[in-house]
Amino acid sequence: MLPGIGLFGTGNIVRVIVPFLREKGFKVEAIWGRTLAEASQVAHDLQIPFFTNQVDDVLLKKDVDLIFILCAPHLHAQISVKALGIGKHVLCDKPSGLSQIDALKMVRAALYYPSLISILNHSLRFLPAFIHMKNAIGDGVIGKINLIEVQLRMGTLLHDTYDWLCDEKMGGGALTMVGSHVIDLISHLTGQRATKVHAVIRTFNKDPNHVTQNPFITGIRTITAPDFCSFQMELEGGVLVTANLNTHMTSAFTQEILVCGTIGHLIVKGCNLYSCQGSDEKVVYSESDDTPQTDSSLPGPYLNGLCKMITALKEAFLPVEDKKGWVKQPVLSAATFEDGLYVQVSSP
Amino acid sequence: MLPGIGLFGTGNIVRVIVPFLREKGFKVEAIWGRTLAEASQVAHDLQIPFFTNQVDDVLLKKDVDLIFILCAPHLHAQISVKALGIGKHVLCDKPSGLSQIDALKMVRAALYYPSLISILNHSLRFLPAFIHMKNAIGDGVIGKINLIEVQLRMGTLLHDTYDWLCDEKMGGGALTMVGSHVIDLISHLTGQRATKVHAVIRTFNKDPNHVTQNPFITGIRTITAPDFCSFQMELEGGVLVTANLNTHMTSAFTQEILVCGTIGHLIVKGCNLYSCQGSDEKVVYSESDDTPQTDSSLPGPYLNGLCKMITALKEAFLPVEDKKGWVKQPVLSAATFEDGLYVQVSSP
Repeated sequence: MLPGIGLFGTGNIVRVIVPFLREKGFKVEAIWGRTLAEASQVAHDLQIPFFTNQVDDVLLKKDVDLIFILCAPHLHAQISVKALGIGKHVLCDKPSGLSQIDALKMVRAALYYPSLISILNHSLRFLPAFIHMKNAIGDGVIGKINLIEVQLRMGTLLHDTYDWLCDEKMGGGALTMVGSHVIDLISHLTGQRATKVHAVIRTFNKDPNHVTQNPFITGIRTITAPDFCSFQMELEGGVLVTANLNTHMTSAFTQEILVCGTIGHLIVKGCNLYSCQGSDEKVVYSESDDTPQTDSSLPGPYLNGLCKMITALKEAFLPVEDKKGWVKQPVLSAATFEDGLYVQVSSP
Repeated sequence: MLPGIGLFGTGNIVRVIVPFLREKGFKVEAIWGRTLAEASQVAHDLQIPFFTNQVDDVLLKKDVDLIFILCAPHLHAQISVKALGIGKHVLCDKPSGLSQIDALKMVRAALYYPSLISILNHSLRFLPAFIHMKNAIGDGVIGKINLIEVQLRMGTLLHDTYDWLCDEKMGGGALTMVGSHVIDLISHLTGQRATKVHAVIRTFNKDPNHVTQNPFITGIRTITAPDFCSFQMELEGGVLVTANLNTHMTSAFTQEILVCGTIGHLIVKGCNLYSCQGSDEKVVYSESDDTPQTDSSLPGPYLNGLCKMITALKEAFLPVEDKKGWVKQPVLSAATFEDGLYVQVSSP
């Protein structure tokens, strides 16, 4: 039986996934917003029966059994620990809290309630292209992995108004917002974790009055969230990873993840997987990226993966009669809170 | 009047450029090879009237007035200093010698004989796409530059037999062979030099018996030349550069140089230039890459640039009657030996 859903957050991502949740048969029972006005607006637009700005009001609702935490990062640990404590399943957005202490609290709660689902929204793990890539790596299609190159190019992560996304300490910026997904994905694909990390992080658009992409943010506040990050990681098995996260583009979002092995390479561009053992790259898996494009904070492959993850959640809950019950297999590959702690620790 | 040319080196590059030199009206008078056998073979194949394995035999030839130094790097300084000393013009392949001392010797000789041409084969400066890019940057098309991302993917730089290319100390490897061009190009495009450099350099294929791309190199020798390099540079003006040089690919050579400014970006892919101020990348300059493709040590854009540079040399010599005379303008943008010293000093 599918559980009722309580949402935390009023951002674009909420507006995009609510129709998809309903399509899959989930009922969205309640929504929490930072202010009553925000919550009421989104509840009205999406026809959600209950809205509030009190965390407990959503958590304690009887018909809510699965919590989606999609609000600002500083609330992630608090809400998820509380939710697990009163017996609710949790899907929490990436940055698992703001600090390692936050992440550790979440891990402890998840370990304490193993009968509840507690997963992170590292949705690329569910993108079919990466599922195929992981299988191909496991099958030895490219031999032993030497190198991974990640290249991400997108528009600004900032909204039209000043909010936590502008602030590094609040969890904004290319590294926390995007880099966390990359770090998680690499450990997922290779089964190896980082032993050494080096990064160059820059905030070129510090002055809100001169952020040409965002003429709306003005005033005396400084933007501290990094808009560019280049990092290199060495993994346990000797694999070298290099990633460039560039949010200075005005053109469309592009993402390329290249894995070079001793006898060939695999590359995911957007939602498609290519493989190369000789001179030509062959398409291994391709997908028309028909997921609705919203703002650049949730680009195609991430949204696509999230939809696949929601489908997996449905498959986990549906076969069990009891609304608290679920089967492990469909969500087995999801990122756990422990994976989130690893990402926190290894973030440069 | 066009000067007669003396060639040092017997590699693929020699075989490729000799027909092109003749097409432009230059006479190739002499060739030097490491061994008489090599020199004789290439001289025979290309119908060059004189061959030798003695450096002086080429330099002292009366009808040789322009020297092309395309041999192993450890000879560059020695040959170019000697050539300038007896009044011959010099075009020397990138790595300007093996060490800063070598590079310095070359700079001193070049400064001492300002009436002679002394330039380096940093041929990308002559590639039309980069000429247009430099002009667009100068015209302020993308505003102030924040970021430069360089991505180079190619096959192995090694030949089928063990030679200096396998040895880091002899000047082999991705950083010296390719990175030097990138470092030079960036200072040329931006007019800024590096103040800080960081690099991760790897030789994954150390064991010649396990270099799958090169099953021909065997024995007990170890390959020390790096096959991957990722470096970050900060330039004087605050521009951040990040470059990935990957020689692990089996598919075709690709090169992308992205320059992000405050109001847009420019990107050169292969030999084509694209510009973007809004949501779409527009083609600014495109060129059918019809230059003959040889081995991966001289990919399309580099060979194309070299051909344009030879054309520029023709334009420098042709208007002057005296065979020693030349005009500065056509070769003004070429890399000088001083530029070579900068590249040596700033190589990570």
